Amino acid sequence: MRIAISTGGGDAPGLNAVIRAVVLAAERQGWECWGIRDGYNGLLEPAQCLGEPVMRLTPETVYGIGALGGTILGSTNRGNPLRYPVRHADGSMAEVDRADELIGLFRARGFDALVSVGGDGSMAIAESLCRKGLTVVGVPKTIDNDLDHTYTTFGFDTAVGFATECIDRLHTTAYSQHRVMVVEVMGRYAGWIALHAGMAGGAHAILIPEIPFDLAVVAESIAARDAAGHHHSLVVVAEGAQALGGQRELLAAAGAGHAERLGGIGARLEHELAALTGKECRAVVLGHLLRGGSPSAFDRVVASRFGAAAVRALAQGQSGVMVALGGSEIGTVPLSEVAGRTRRVPVDSDTVATARELGICLGDRAA
Amino acid sequence: MRIAISTGGGDAPGLNAVIRAVVLAAERQGWECWGIRDGYNGLLEPAQCLGEPVMRLTPETVYGIGALGGTILGSTNRGNPLRYPVRHADGSMAEVDRADELIGLFRARGFDALVSVGGDGSMAIAESLCRKGLTVVGVPKTIDNDLDHTYTTFGFDTAVGFATECIDRLHTTAYSQHRVMVVEVMGRYAGWIALHAGMAGGAHAILIPEIPFDLAVVAESIAARDAAGHHHSLVVVAEGAQALGGQRELLAAAGAGHAERLGGIGARLEHELAALTGKECRAVVLGHLLRGGSPSAFDRVVASRFGAAAVRALAQGQSGVMVALGGSEIGTVPLSEVAGRTRRVPVDSDTVATARELGICLGDRAA
Amino acid sequence: MRIAISTGGGDAPGLNAVIRAVVLAAERQGWECWGIRDGYNGLLEPAQCLGEPVMRLTPETVYGIGALGGTILGSTNRGNPLRYPVRHADGSMAEVDRADELIGLFRARGFDALVSVGGDGSMAIAESLCRKGLTVVGVPKTIDNDLDHTYTTFGFDTAVGFATECIDRLHTTAYSQHRVMVVEVMGRYAGWIALHAGMAGGAHAILIPEIPFDLAVVAESIAARDAAGHHHSLVVVAEGAQALGGQRELLAAAGAGHAERLGGIGARLEHELAALTGKECRAVVLGHLLRGGSPSAFDRVVASRFGAAAVRALAQGQSGVMVALGGSEIGTVPLSEVAGRTRRVPVDSDTVATARELGICLGDRAA
Amino acid sequence: MRIAISTGGGDAPGLNAVIRAVVLAAERQGWECWGIRDGYNGLLEPAQCLGEPVMRLTPETVYGIGALGGTILGSTNRGNPLRYPVRHADGSMAEVDRADELIGLFRARGFDALVSVGGDGSMAIAESLCRKGLTVVGVPKTIDNDLDHTYTTFGFDTAVGFATECIDRLHTTAYSQHRVMVVEVMGRYAGWIALHAGMAGGAHAILIPEIPFDLAVVAESIAARDAAGHHHSLVVVAEGAQALGGQRELLAAAGAGHAERLGGIGARLEHELAALTGKECRAVVLGHLLRGGSPSAFDRVVASRFGAAAVRALAQGQSGVMVALGGSEIGTVPLSEVAGRTRRVPVDSDTVATARELGICLGDRAA
Repeated sequence: MRIAISTGGGDAPGLNAVIRAVVLAAERQGWECWGIRDGYNGLLEPAQCLGEPVMRLTPETVYGIGALGGTILGSTNRGNPLRYPVRHADGSMAEVDRADELIGLFRARGFDALVSVGGDGSMAIAESLCRKGLTVVGVPKTIDNDLDHTYTTFGFDTAVGFATECIDRLHTTAYSQHRVMVVEVMGRYAGWIALHAGMAGGAHAILIPEIPFDLAVVAESIAARDAAGHHHSLVVVAEGAQALGGQRELLAAAGAGHAERLGGIGARLEHELAALTGKECRAVVLGHLLRGGSPSAFDRVVASRFGAAAVRALAQGQSGVMVALGGSEIGTVPLSEVAGRTRRVPVDSDTVATARELGICLGDRAA
Repeated sequence: MRIAISTGGGDAPGLNAVIRAVVLAAERQGWECWGIRDGYNGLLEPAQCLGEPVMRLTPETVYGIGALGGTILGSTNRGNPLRYPVRHADGSMAEVDRADELIGLFRARGFDALVSVGGDGSMAIAESLCRKGLTVVGVPKTIDNDLDHTYTTFGFDTAVGFATECIDRLHTTAYSQHRVMVVEVMGRYAGWIALHAGMAGGAHAILIPEIPFDLAVVAESIAARDAAGHHHSLVVVAEGAQALGGQRELLAAAGAGHAERLGGIGARLEHELAALTGKECRAVVLGHLLRGGSPSAFDRVVASRFGAAAVRALAQGQSGVMVALGGSEIGTVPLSEVAGRTRRVPVDSDTVATARELGICLGDRAA
Repeated sequence: MRIAISTGGGDAPGLNAVIRAVVLAAERQGWECWGIRDGYNGLLEPAQCLGEPVMRLTPETVYGIGALGGTILGSTNRGNPLRYPVRHADGSMAEVDRADELIGLFRARGFDALVSVGGDGSMAIAESLCRKGLTVVGVPKTIDNDLDHTYTTFGFDTAVGFATECIDRLHTTAYSQHRVMVVEVMGRYAGWIALHAGMAGGAHAILIPEIPFDLAVVAESIAARDAAGHHHSLVVVAEGAQALGGQRELLAAAGAGHAERLGGIGARLEHELAALTGKECRAVVLGHLLRGGSPSAFDRVVASRFGAAAVRALAQGQSGVMVALGGSEIGTVPLSEVAGRTRRVPVDSDTVATARELGICLGDRAA
Repeated sequence: MRIAISTGGGDAPGLNAVIRAVVLAAERQGWECWGIRDGYNGLLEPAQCLGEPVMRLTPETVYGIGALGGTILGSTNRGNPLRYPVRHADGSMAEVDRADELIGLFRARGFDALVSVGGDGSMAIAESLCRKGLTVVGVPKTIDNDLDHTYTTFGFDTAVGFATECIDRLHTTAYSQHRVMVVEVMGRYAGWIALHAGMAGGAHAILIPEIPFDLAVVAESIAARDAAGHHHSLVVVAEGAQALGGQRELLAAAGAGHAERLGGIGARLEHELAALTGKECRAVVLGHLLRGGSPSAFDRVVASRFGAAAVRALAQGQSGVMVALGGSEIGTVPLSEVAGRTRRVPVDSDTVATARELGICLGDRAA
């Protein structure tokens, strides 16, 4: 058997640990392993790849890579084969479905099965390819921790760890300058990183997409701290956090071009909270910093288990499934159940309750 | 209501985060919080304590301590009140049961309930005190991760993280010196730390108490690496790992006084593997290094959830229970079900299977 | 003898290590040590301080603080006593000289000497107080490393270390997204942090205040990398870096309101480089993150040596001096020689030559 | 021009940064760069090397390696060509001088010059090769920081940083267990690591080779802490620290076979201090942990400057010199002046004075 690995979507610490585990586990099955560079571009656009577009992966190739960030398979953010961007002669752009072509190229290489490592989008592509006859097993990847059907994925723990270290560092400077620091972290649809890093870092307010926030409530919590002699505050906000209905327009109006100019919720909160509290506010945007770095031990173990489980699934003749962590053991779920579903923070979880009980402002008026 | 906190047993990163969470959550209940210094010695032997034997804990007292290792309640390794050591006039030692005295002192302080943070031993003491009428809620603490009924506890993730960093560092020196490095980690009854840190750190062999090891198998795996041109190996061993039946005596005999002199399994393996493989071996014992340090973000969150859940349990009128993490939510289990039970690594778990599939030698002949 | 310590200016890792060293060294002299909270506000505005405005510092008080970021003396960024801000009845602001009042309050407390820890501004204040008769020894503090007459100060090494870790992390995400990442670090007048962190982190371009940059040169270096198949680049820029003469206006014009809206050079470069290279650019501003955190071992040692040297200087009867690191030994320099002088990166140093020889673009056309 | 790089002696963080800098700087000179694997074994014993014995080094080969520990040139601890070990037919070992053979192999490869990165021993070899006609420039490498004529080298700062982190971690466990922790660090002839890590980590006693220690003094300092209510102590000891004259035999006698069995000074101190103080003592040996890991930013910058300076020296026609850091600029010193000289901690330095002034016991009776 000859299997190929593809990594797609944004960068996440642990990708290399998955690749290493797939290669080592495949080796014990007596299978041959290949890596497709730059998403699927190693097959679709080999001339654009730096280095070999498709590379043989052996235990020597993956030696020691488990501790490294990034992916040895190159850029992860390449064209979606189902909607591949093409530039017409007149300069206009369009999208074409290159799935059949991809499957042809895949078979021409003698590949029998695909391990696709990626997020929501990659799983949808994987499912399409599977429906067209390819043997595919997916491995979930999302720093945001928002993929459904899996208790966690790799990358999240590393991201939370580094975000927490950054918040730790911001405490003293917020304190010594009597400032409000607004720390924006990743999390477009789910607030896992903000909630966990905010709690771990001792944030005073945490704003997540699952709980629309009331700016007045946040400002009041800062004022209450001031009145108690604590002249600094730390607000952690997920990039996808939203102000309460009526306020949303207000916020947009108040920020006027500001919102549109700066884009980020962090910068908008810096602006609004300064106006509401009369205090110096500073936004720090961690986004790009959270995708890199050596994976945490936790993420390396999860990534290794996912990689080995993908090979196990293929050895059992499975296809069209994604490996997933349910409770304490790895299992598989159909790819068709994964796509388009987002795992959000349950607002009635004990973690959210804990945040409230620690006195953290979550932006709403609930006690 | 006036509640008291006691921390017992060995040090674990996250103790301060538990204390902080209990204090903040109690504050919101309108309760008063006190800390007993040095286990129960703040009550039993106040004159021996450095500083106040019993200290009022307020949100100010616990400000910022969530990120600190150790415990603000002082030494954790003091006398067990059920078997308190006393020195007789003739110099001989004996043990007395001071539980009733302790409860008297506890009530004299006006304390209504106890939050006891500790391991197996502390939970047994807590259960005894509860049976004598004290309102008690336990919080599990074990770096080894071997307490039953809870999916994980705080301290373990930090310990695995640091052990992994140490193993990462040892790779290059093992490699450049063509050596076998034997890394001994904590884990008297369960091999969780060894298994997780070994997998995360890319160890070539992992020896845990759950799988008795055959020295010849370990030596063969090192020889096989040598034959393949890899002249170094990393062996991670839990302090409680055991050689197979017959070999145990052999090991003791071969090591002669060595075993007894050096005590640790790491030093014994250094000695035996050098003899069996003819290679330079070096043991590194991480034990003491794994208990300290700032808790990881994961441990801070779990510790905070445990602390808040303990207050929640008291508010609900519970007693004689330990808070525990079952799946993704915190619950409680009766203290009577916890004591004397050890959660060991299931040898049929996917994590163990993954280790084998990655080609890691687990010391047995199973494929 | 009774001495007082004041810390001023921005936060810097190592401040607590200085305080600890002063207290321990003073203890051995048999002196009493006091800390003035919030710069000089502990004396000038005691009612505004959280906690005791002036605190007795003993070996117990400073136990273990050497490893902590921030300062136990509270906020560092308070009023300059020479130009203290006052609000008139009509709401307008003015500045008054409260130096004599401060000296009176200082003497009323029975203080014999002052150890002033701070940057350029604090040293100027210290010199003024000295000229008015106070016994003063200064301790240099500048994360930017730009104080003259001292080879280095504490805080810089920690800042460079964390900036490097951030740059390390950005490599993989820049790489996998084919982006240009612009990393803005502190350094208003001197490019020490940018130069050192940029070299350590493997930046492709480093822009410092000492070398006015030509945007076209930077864009060309990015294009050259692209042509060689490296589709990502990392540009590290000091906050005080400046475009070449004519370009400066161009830059301001092109950025129009952009410059003024965003302020930072990082955001402006993101804007300009995207326009010039046609590539996706993203700015990451590290400023606030570089002041916090546990000091590096290097900074703790330097800070301890400075603190002990300050006490040694006082014991020798010195006043009006700042302790400084010249070569490998600590000495003292007159405060009058320190104020108003900035130590910039020598453009003919071997470090700058090394950067060029490693192929790093410094923004100019020099080979 | 075609130059070759060899790395020798023990592992040190920063070796890869030197290699990278040499390659990039040579590239700008238009030179070709080659790496000799496994010390000089890539030339002398190519069949024994894993991978290519001599490898072409290009900017692509060294891409991103500056942040990695170890060396891409393989094992550093191989045969000294001046005294190469050979096994006779009868099994006995002997040493032969293979220097001329090495130079022949070197020339046969078309190499014009050698950059030799290593410690004392490697510099002596380099000088011999130079005297036999080879063009050689040395780059100093010693974690112990004890090479003469250079203010510092790479590797030391990383080792001190990690040792300090370990000491930080041991504080809480020493504290909570009322123990004496003895931390043994590298430093056979010079106590730089012990002194710096001990000061940074807040050790209570530091024992270095430069100051013979009196065990009674160390025990008294621990007893004094106990009397003051501090029931734990941390002793940092360099592996080469020695007891005072008469005591040395006493120590050996008391430890009997213990010394010989355990070898290390740490284990002996654990034994002796337990006997003298009646307290629980535990030794932690960090040696092997200090050579690995990603180099600190400081070490990466120094290593880069050294590598670039080596190429600069060759371009200027120099040979028989070692690059060195004197003050703030890199220069060169003749190899003949380097060999056999050790830079020890000056006992009259302000750093040693600071240690005493902080109340750290240095093992002698000097105040």
